[in-house]
Amino acid sequence: MDFVENIKTLMERLKKLDFREMYNNDFFLTWEKSNEELESVFVVADILRTMRENNISTKIFDSGLGISVFRDNSTRTRFSFASACNLLGLEVQDLDEGKSQIAHGETVRETANMISFMADIIGIRDDMFIGKGNAYMKEVSNAVQEGYTDGVLEQRPTLINLQCDIDHPTQCMADLLHLIHYFGGVENLKGKKLAMTWAYSPSYGKPLSVPQGVIGLMTRMGMEVVLAHPEGYDVLPEVEEVAKVNVEKNGGSFTKTNSMKEAFENADIVYPKSWAPFEAMEKRTELYSKRDIAGIDELEKELLKENARYKDWECNEKMMELTKDGKALYLHCLPADITGVSCEIGEVGESVFNRYRELLYREAGYKPYIIAAMMFLSKVKDPISVFEKLLEEDKPRFIEK
Amino acid sequence: MDFVENIKTLMERLKKLDFREMYNNDFFLTWEKSNEELESVFVVADILRTMRENNISTKIFDSGLGISVFRDNSTRTRFSFASACNLLGLEVQDLDEGKSQIAHGETVRETANMISFMADIIGIRDDMFIGKGNAYMKEVSNAVQEGYTDGVLEQRPTLINLQCDIDHPTQCMADLLHLIHYFGGVENLKGKKLAMTWAYSPSYGKPLSVPQGVIGLMTRMGMEVVLAHPEGYDVLPEVEEVAKVNVEKNGGSFTKTNSMKEAFENADIVYPKSWAPFEAMEKRTELYSKRDIAGIDELEKELLKENARYKDWECNEKMMELTKDGKALYLHCLPADITGVSCEIGEVGESVFNRYRELLYREAGYKPYIIAAMMFLSKVKDPISVFEKLLEEDKPRFIEK
Amino acid sequence: MDFVENIKTLMERLKKLDFREMYNNDFFLTWEKSNEELESVFVVADILRTMRENNISTKIFDSGLGISVFRDNSTRTRFSFASACNLLGLEVQDLDEGKSQIAHGETVRETANMISFMADIIGIRDDMFIGKGNAYMKEVSNAVQEGYTDGVLEQRPTLINLQCDIDHPTQCMADLLHLIHYFGGVENLKGKKLAMTWAYSPSYGKPLSVPQGVIGLMTRMGMEVVLAHPEGYDVLPEVEEVAKVNVEKNGGSFTKTNSMKEAFENADIVYPKSWAPFEAMEKRTELYSKRDIAGIDELEKELLKENARYKDWECNEKMMELTKDGKALYLHCLPADITGVSCEIGEVGESVFNRYRELLYREAGYKPYIIAAMMFLSKVKDPISVFEKLLEEDKPRFIEK
Repeated sequence: MDFVENIKTLMERLKKLDFREMYNNDFFLTWEKSNEELESVFVVADILRTMRENNISTKIFDSGLGISVFRDNSTRTRFSFASACNLLGLEVQDLDEGKSQIAHGETVRETANMISFMADIIGIRDDMFIGKGNAYMKEVSNAVQEGYTDGVLEQRPTLINLQCDIDHPTQCMADLLHLIHYFGGVENLKGKKLAMTWAYSPSYGKPLSVPQGVIGLMTRMGMEVVLAHPEGYDVLPEVEEVAKVNVEKNGGSFTKTNSMKEAFENADIVYPKSWAPFEAMEKRTELYSKRDIAGIDELEKELLKENARYKDWECNEKMMELTKDGKALYLHCLPADITGVSCEIGEVGESVFNRYRELLYREAGYKPYIIAAMMFLSKVKDPISVFEKLLEEDKPRFIEK
Repeated sequence: MDFVENIKTLMERLKKLDFREMYNNDFFLTWEKSNEELESVFVVADILRTMRENNISTKIFDSGLGISVFRDNSTRTRFSFASACNLLGLEVQDLDEGKSQIAHGETVRETANMISFMADIIGIRDDMFIGKGNAYMKEVSNAVQEGYTDGVLEQRPTLINLQCDIDHPTQCMADLLHLIHYFGGVENLKGKKLAMTWAYSPSYGKPLSVPQGVIGLMTRMGMEVVLAHPEGYDVLPEVEEVAKVNVEKNGGSFTKTNSMKEAFENADIVYPKSWAPFEAMEKRTELYSKRDIAGIDELEKELLKENARYKDWECNEKMMELTKDGKALYLHCLPADITGVSCEIGEVGESVFNRYRELLYREAGYKPYIIAAMMFLSKVKDPISVFEKLLEEDKPRFIEK
Repeated sequence: MDFVENIKTLMERLKKLDFREMYNNDFFLTWEKSNEELESVFVVADILRTMRENNISTKIFDSGLGISVFRDNSTRTRFSFASACNLLGLEVQDLDEGKSQIAHGETVRETANMISFMADIIGIRDDMFIGKGNAYMKEVSNAVQEGYTDGVLEQRPTLINLQCDIDHPTQCMADLLHLIHYFGGVENLKGKKLAMTWAYSPSYGKPLSVPQGVIGLMTRMGMEVVLAHPEGYDVLPEVEEVAKVNVEKNGGSFTKTNSMKEAFENADIVYPKSWAPFEAMEKRTELYSKRDIAGIDELEKELLKENARYKDWECNEKMMELTKDGKALYLHCLPADITGVSCEIGEVGESVFNRYRELLYREAGYKPYIIAAMMFLSKVKDPISVFEKLLEEDKPRFIEK
């Protein structure tokens, strides 16, 4: 019974961590969580995965709803959230914006309560507009907290940030768990060089949440994090501040450069990805709020023209040769813009992408478990006791013989 | 074990009620049900709620579908129905009109059977057209009854009216359960004055199902029900007849006035809400069936112009002062048109709405349980025995420690 | 305990069949499966149905996802798939094309894996374009097989063809199970004459999957299968080849005619249904890939004009009189174009349709069980042992008393 031993070892690690503040609480930004809280998420994710892989049911809910609010199209995150809910026993109910028109103020407060009478979890993705997504999530959180305090709601649905304008915690935590397993333990990440770099894409306006999430999270692991982008493609200054503070507390370094090559040199890990300058995204938010369609069109043209100046920011074989032994681990949140496959010139060369495909898929495979672990720690009062019960009950996830 | 005592007391009450006709039967209009049947719904709703609040699973279905048919957009009712299904163990499957084009006649009969092979419940909301919604529900009900009798369907899916052109039973029953709990028992409602009054809204064409449902239901509780609206804003005459007959049988009174003030005077409960004149709605149904877009536009203009004559029909602080001790209970099915919040001038003043917000949310919170209780009584042959089993099994809804 | 005896008899039959190749395998085309494999599907469908009808839970999954991909609108198949998933304990998650834009190549491979981390089953309907649907399914299958082999996926989601350009196995297997029960056993089908004939419909471009599936499947039962259509309305030649080979192996016959009357003469079973010539459908695929809208419009006009020449291809009372004792069993996959009901002139006369309605509904009622049986045999390693466990556990599907 090898896997039971593994689970028990993980449970021993969990016992030493302080995650009490996560109970009945939301998960918005990784830097709002302590290092022990983040580690708890990883340990719980690994326990849930080991249980499922060994056909032990982890269904802690007999009934209950997991509500998803997606303010733009999504397949990966939608399925990750649905998988996590299903794994724990919650039924997904989608709050379709087209069907319900969540707005702000009174409407947000009311809708948040109206959908939550039997909701245990609310997952929100709202990354379209700088200054809006995270604020909206907090509004919903405050509304259901008030409803719970007032006795309107029997339980307080806790929120999971499925991507906002500031952070993409479920993605970056999945990326990090991938690194932990790839390098054989969190302790092995210390001193590793990670290049979070901008890359060219024929589309413009890709969200900033991944690069921001990466520098806000990876700088806590004692890594040498380099943020590289062409001049003007800055990320939110407050997140750069987070990265700097992280480094002061946890060691390692956080540096910036305008050269992709410099970032790739001797890197252990590369994360080349397109994004839009935060100032342009702020401008876009403003134009949208004014419904200035002509202005939006002009901004788009401008940004595409600017982008086109940096077509050489591509993660190709030549670039990869610069990395540590030419073998840095390539990360991406997917889908990537692959040169000659999904576009003429893109973020990554075909042969590089193909070589790392299997690893990229594994990276993505952590996301459902990261989300499930976040849910678990926000809902379960005594995780150790619950895991013991699940092991003891040993109910099969699936009766196949 | 206080709550078990509560549940047992409720079960004793249930034992004395005759709800046998509800088994394998639909719930369309409250006035098609006996007083004891309505009380059974309330008692079962309270039992289900007490069980869930005390972490006892009420999942009586191990598998099975609850089908929802929404002929217009809906968030509240959609989530209430989904919550009720989930609470009892049914999985919601939405029959999207856009995807399936339910029509009438042969198509209704066929589609109703085709979706019902494993359906235990069908919930329908169809309130858009006077003379159509309830008729459509009956058509579906007859089709699945025939399918069941013929042996095509293994079980007869029972129907829940989630709002039609005549009644809104799940809403009005939730309103009434709120009143029962607020005033400390159904016996305390006798003699209470309830003002169901029209209120101004900048939108036109709001459904009549709530005012109709309210006068058709509340007149059975021995209350003094007043229906107030500007001249011309009549509700369906047949529902007014229902109210009159109710009063003859149950005591209390049903009166009408064209003065909001008169209705509010000394009222214990006020329900100010916009609706459209039933004759205008009949005309609209006709125009739609002729696809007379110009006619519809003209009707809309006419109605908005007419509405605008009654902007003073607003539930504001001055109006509230007229009520019993200035403290009448304010009801609304939500969302309300709040002056200065969701519109310039609306149904209710901001301070009034804010003072009652918590209570309004509680009112809405009864709906999932009302729907679940309707389902329960239509599907379960021996409710007492099933509740005893659930109590004995004592399966947690959620393992949190 | 009559039904337990029935189930045990069915289990004895199952024990004698070889269905080992179905485990961890897809179900694409009936002619890719052995006769024993097809019989296994029928036996398992009957066992599952008997269990459900006798309130025994068949939920073999405690959690897990059943993913549906519908590339065009669907109600019947959608609900059949959802019912089958629910019956076995899987939660349906719909991959909405509008939301996710599955394309080909890299994107298919990636999306297939991204949605499958916790998916046990994928059901796909893609019947719009000749040469595309089945190819797409295989692409998805290869992608998840690779993901499973690489260790990216913990389990291999198996695929069910919910209708492609070549075959409609869940429909035709349901049709056949209907025939088996109607005629009292598969052995009684030997020598029966089945007329699969084209019929007039005012709409054009109906898929070929049903006539193709029928001739590809029914020719394995020793039946006299006649394919009738006006000149030019040919089905895929490779499927006609399948039918011919079937007849060589299994006896019976496969003939063609351009006369509906000839096909109906002395037939035991008639299946009159509209479809489009495969060559026209190939042309349409080509026009679509070139986005030649004018060409598509022209093709449509041409096809409708051609169709209109064969309005007498209608299954009416006169036609039915030609069949064996005037009492052939009328089959249709529904919805049918009924003369004077859903259109002016259609595939079938009203009185014929009405006489067979109940039987048509029964025919459709087999589909959820056929799909569930396909899932069951592709996921369960030891079906006999699992059925024994389900019988022993005897968990009620629904506690009603």
